[in-house]
Amino acid sequence: MKPDIVALGARAEKMIEELARFSAQPGRLVRLFLSPQHRQAADHVAGRMRAAGLSVSEDALGTVRGHWPGAGRARKPVKTLLIGSHLDSVIDAGKYDGPLGVVAGILAVEHLARAGVELPFAIDVLAFGDEEGSRFPATLSTSAACVGAFDRATLGLADADGVTLEQAIRAYGKDPGDIAHCAYKAAEVEAYVEVHIEQGPVLEGENQPLGVVTGIVGQSRLRVAVTGEAGHAGTVPMNMRRDALAGAALMICEVERIAKAHAGMVATVGHVEVIPGAVNVIPGRVQFTMDLRSMDERAREAALRAFAAAAQGIARARKLQVDVEPFHEIAAVDCAPALRRTLALAVEDLALRPIHLASGAGHDAQMMASLCPSAMLFVRCRGGISHNPAEYASPADMGAAVGAIIRFVERHAAAQGAAMASS
Amino acid sequence: MKPDIVALGARAEKMIEELARFSAQPGRLVRLFLSPQHRQAADHVAGRMRAAGLSVSEDALGTVRGHWPGAGRARKPVKTLLIGSHLDSVIDAGKYDGPLGVVAGILAVEHLARAGVELPFAIDVLAFGDEEGSRFPATLSTSAACVGAFDRATLGLADADGVTLEQAIRAYGKDPGDIAHCAYKAAEVEAYVEVHIEQGPVLEGENQPLGVVTGIVGQSRLRVAVTGEAGHAGTVPMNMRRDALAGAALMICEVERIAKAHAGMVATVGHVEVIPGAVNVIPGRVQFTMDLRSMDERAREAALRAFAAAAQGIARARKLQVDVEPFHEIAAVDCAPALRRTLALAVEDLALRPIHLASGAGHDAQMMASLCPSAMLFVRCRGGISHNPAEYASPADMGAAVGAIIRFVERHAAAQGAAMASS
Repeated sequence: MKPDIVALGARAEKMIEELARFSAQPGRLVRLFLSPQHRQAADHVAGRMRAAGLSVSEDALGTVRGHWPGAGRARKPVKTLLIGSHLDSVIDAGKYDGPLGVVAGILAVEHLARAGVELPFAIDVLAFGDEEGSRFPATLSTSAACVGAFDRATLGLADADGVTLEQAIRAYGKDPGDIAHCAYKAAEVEAYVEVHIEQGPVLEGENQPLGVVTGIVGQSRLRVAVTGEAGHAGTVPMNMRRDALAGAALMICEVERIAKAHAGMVATVGHVEVIPGAVNVIPGRVQFTMDLRSMDERAREAALRAFAAAAQGIARARKLQVDVEPFHEIAAVDCAPALRRTLALAVEDLALRPIHLASGAGHDAQMMASLCPSAMLFVRCRGGISHNPAEYASPADMGAAVGAIIRFVERHAAAQGAAMASS
Repeated sequence: MKPDIVALGARAEKMIEELARFSAQPGRLVRLFLSPQHRQAADHVAGRMRAAGLSVSEDALGTVRGHWPGAGRARKPVKTLLIGSHLDSVIDAGKYDGPLGVVAGILAVEHLARAGVELPFAIDVLAFGDEEGSRFPATLSTSAACVGAFDRATLGLADADGVTLEQAIRAYGKDPGDIAHCAYKAAEVEAYVEVHIEQGPVLEGENQPLGVVTGIVGQSRLRVAVTGEAGHAGTVPMNMRRDALAGAALMICEVERIAKAHAGMVATVGHVEVIPGAVNVIPGRVQFTMDLRSMDERAREAALRAFAAAAQGIARARKLQVDVEPFHEIAAVDCAPALRRTLALAVEDLALRPIHLASGAGHDAQMMASLCPSAMLFVRCRGGISHNPAEYASPADMGAAVGAIIRFVERHAAAQGAAMASS
């Protein structure tokens, strides 16, 4: 049975609209981890999973798991293919970031089940609850629990209202003592695949709806503090100044230059604070952040060294002091080559051209990759905009994504069958 | 009678310490226009003036005027030489900025009176109350009143508590209807001279206590708004970005480059706001201020044009929008050449080397110059620091300043006598 891409897209759109109604604030989308709106969305997703023929459970961190045993095979135990994404949102979010991957999983499995496709593996559709990290100062805790990497120290972290994660888990009706039971065993798991909007402009620029993710970039975040000497904007001659901002501006130019010198690297100075910040006072101190991302770990390290050297050189030449303090670091994760190939073929099955691109944003797949071969399918979003109410993916593109996941599962099953037959 | 520089310096230091006690806040100096602390300082100054032999009056804006008729000459009416500075302060001010000029005037006239020096002019020592503009969004209103340039629209301006200037004048016991009577007639006035700390590092760098001000720089202040497109710091490739900060950083580098290309020009970017200002978001908008000062009006205009052209060029190359909005403009004022020469000779009389330098900061002399020939004597201050509790001028340097003013008055009188004798 050939999937009806148009109908699947319309259904994906409808399910995403339904989920968007579960918001803590009228007029804008706010759905935080373990909130009442998370509960509502999880219940709604569970209902959709059951309607699709899945058996539903929920783990100790509220991750909804829709299980389909695979059809027709008597052989037990089978491994499980995981398809998932997240239900939580940022503040004033778009509708697609997260829910699309959950919805795509449900629709794909429903199609496979109705078509009577026989698979040599089971499928779990996973709806995680903590990808954005919008409520607690931690992120990916729900997928971490699924891979057995949940850090119990995060239980003590508090949200803006002073509620700890542990308290929130209990208020959600769960027992933190059960978190260890969330973990899949590596031997039980076939792979993980996630559909997600791109959150960037590449697919739109390529005029293609679907992208095969090569990996998730490694990331470094730095705080840079430049110290000079404050002074009167009128009375200190240019050659006697130690203007922290004049130095910082050169360093910010260097950030861009260094990133552009490495293919696929991005670097951003997003936050700048100028002290004292008065129109008629030479800045005595400037603090800025730098966010650097690349798939190439060695390039990222080289860029960090190049920036540090450039910043020190600028500071030395201007009698400034510069302090560079890393405060966040995450390694790059490669998507599994075999899964990428299968995804690309699945996209081609729809007569589309798969675009290969790295994910510059973090995703649950990043965590799942520590458990099993993982892959991601990106969906074009309008203007590359996300984390914003203007976020948009077309029903046609979402339908194509569901169709590609269906073909991916079929091809993956076929490849396994062939491998098993030949072994 | 030769002035005792050491004793004058010690007395200046003591009077400045006394004035520093009149503050609205314990532990730091805050003395705002028409505040209770302004009242206390004005009363204190009036007492010191009377003790020095001056007759004291106060005008409708609270400017204290200590009058000395000049000695010995029967000829009437004589013109009046004005010596002054201000009593108001910035928030968390130093002790010397303003009071030094008032104290120097009192001590110089006291010396001349006690020495029985005969002058062909009277002297008014003026203690202005609104030079810093710390209370109302206006500045130099008290010296403006003295030159007949008070803008009655400023009466409606309100302070941070919503009190208008008009209300504050009445609360101070004055009548805004009398402001017109504050004005000196040009024909009555001989000249204006002001002693002030340099507020910059030039004299310290030259290792000299006194400077003769060549003029007060013209000033332009601009708001610059750079608009690009916000985006995800991870997902937008470098070549698809319209990063407002990357463009603004280049413009800030241009500000410095342009100022350095013109002798005596200074330019400062003191305030920067990056929007949205999150570590992981490409800045969509940056607003910054630019403060540009020069004695050379044509150079200042050329620099403004050069900056606008550079900013537009950077914006065009990066598909950004840039808006440059001037919000403050004040013309350069030359100090009177004859007075400058007399001041330089007076400094040399003390066996010191007069340093000729422009004032990068605004002063009451700037306003007074519209009434009469005006000049300023700068006093070295430690580290060039002002508007800060660390502001410091040594008693020795302050004593030298009083000595130089005494010699200036004597030389000015002698030159007048010679001129009169020869006419």
